[in-house]
Amino acid sequence: MQNMPNKTPLANNHISVDCVVFGFDGEQLKVLLIKRVGEDGGEIFHDMKLPGSLIYMDEDLDDAAQRVLKELTGVKNIHLMQFKAFGSKNRTSNPKDVRWLERAMESRVERIVTIAYVAMVKMDRALSQSLLDEYQACWVPIRDMKTLAFDHNQIVKEALVYIRQFVEFNPLVLFELLPRKFTASQLRVLFEVVYDKQFDVRNFHKKIAVMEYVVPLEERQKGVPHRAARYYKFDKKTYNKLRK
Amino acid sequence: MQNMPNKTPLANNHISVDCVVFGFDGEQLKVLLIKRVGEDGGEIFHDMKLPGSLIYMDEDLDDAAQRVLKELTGVKNIHLMQFKAFGSKNRTSNPKDVRWLERAMESRVERIVTIAYVAMVKMDRALSQSLLDEYQACWVPIRDMKTLAFDHNQIVKEALVYIRQFVEFNPLVLFELLPRKFTASQLRVLFEVVYDKQFDVRNFHKKIAVMEYVVPLEERQKGVPHRAARYYKFDKKTYNKLRK
Repeated sequence: MQNMPNKTPLANNHISVDCVVFGFDGEQLKVLLIKRVGEDGGEIFHDMKLPGSLIYMDEDLDDAAQRVLKELTGVKNIHLMQFKAFGSKNRTSNPKDVRWLERAMESRVERIVTIAYVAMVKMDRALSQSLLDEYQACWVPIRDMKTLAFDHNQIVKEALVYIRQFVEFNPLVLFELLPRKFTASQLRVLFEVVYDKQFDVRNFHKKIAVMEYVVPLEERQKGVPHRAARYYKFDKKTYNKLRK
Repeated sequence: MQNMPNKTPLANNHISVDCVVFGFDGEQLKVLLIKRVGEDGGEIFHDMKLPGSLIYMDEDLDDAAQRVLKELTGVKNIHLMQFKAFGSKNRTSNPKDVRWLERAMESRVERIVTIAYVAMVKMDRALSQSLLDEYQACWVPIRDMKTLAFDHNQIVKEALVYIRQFVEFNPLVLFELLPRKFTASQLRVLFEVVYDKQFDVRNFHKKIAVMEYVVPLEERQKGVPHRAARYYKFDKKTYNKLRK
């Protein structure tokens, strides 16, 4: 903060938080979205958006992210990481978004800077049912995502880039998305959806072999129509030792 | 953004940008600060703060950071990276800060969320002289930094953590702080100030040996009182090849 010249109007902004929660169901990477109902030129429209809302006056940013996510989706106590502030003046350039926002906020909307958070969770988390009625929170496969409200497609895209860099140096978070015992193929699929590229099966086995914290078990899959695959487990002790 | 319950007052915030610019003079890591003059209980006080200010209504965040840095210090066209939004409600808990801010802004101050940027530059950059008169921008060694305005000590601290993680995977930025030809000792001092720890001289030579993009030259220092050290250069081609 410094003395402000008086000639240029200051941004009397509102500040929101938006949460990008990625889930993995064993096959696909999905993102948690909520429904938005609005009106455009007399027509009712339905589309989707990230769970997000304005912050309260007496609320820190991290607290606001947790509150908003819980209020809109029922998902709580997850590790939300702040990854970027989105503050382009074009965020609210779509009149459809502005009208929706002004009705929702019951005030004039000038410009909103949003602080974006990201998390990765197992998809067995319960979405609150009463909230589901109101906001219809749901998991949408990244590949099937349509045009979202505001700049939310951009926010999801940048959240993915952030997550890819993050797991590179903190692979732990990936293993938290898997069951306690997992097959090489399950791990490969997870890598494939996070990095959005194919990994050669044989090379991936070599990759696993050098991950000292991925330990092969004597146990194999049971009752599968194909050749039963070996199970692996994630060894957190070894992981932590290697990280020191 | 979602429908807001009406019971809790919304944060009608102002948004600022703050720039943490680190410089290296060959020996020390310094941070670019500006002077602040305020009044507290009838007493005039002088202290320091990061170059930062409110954003304009029609200005994107990145543009605001570049503008503010240039206006307050004369430093321009540097690679400022957004690294974190600071939005604790306690940011403006010090009455001294609030009074200073309200006088500077000529309006009531409720709460300010600041988007923090960080950059590393060579210290041969000129600080604008006319601006120097007004804001007295200056380079302060990290170790000598006193209590800054607002939460700026915290912002500098987190910027350092960010920079350490960043150079780990983008060592290129470190070499941009060095002269074209540098000695092993100059490189070691740079690592030491960035990581804030001592590196053993012999081990550091081994570390250099495995950095394929640090190439020893035939040339040695001239006219030095001690044993003339070999020069090295940074080979960007090799660096880029290895990064692929």
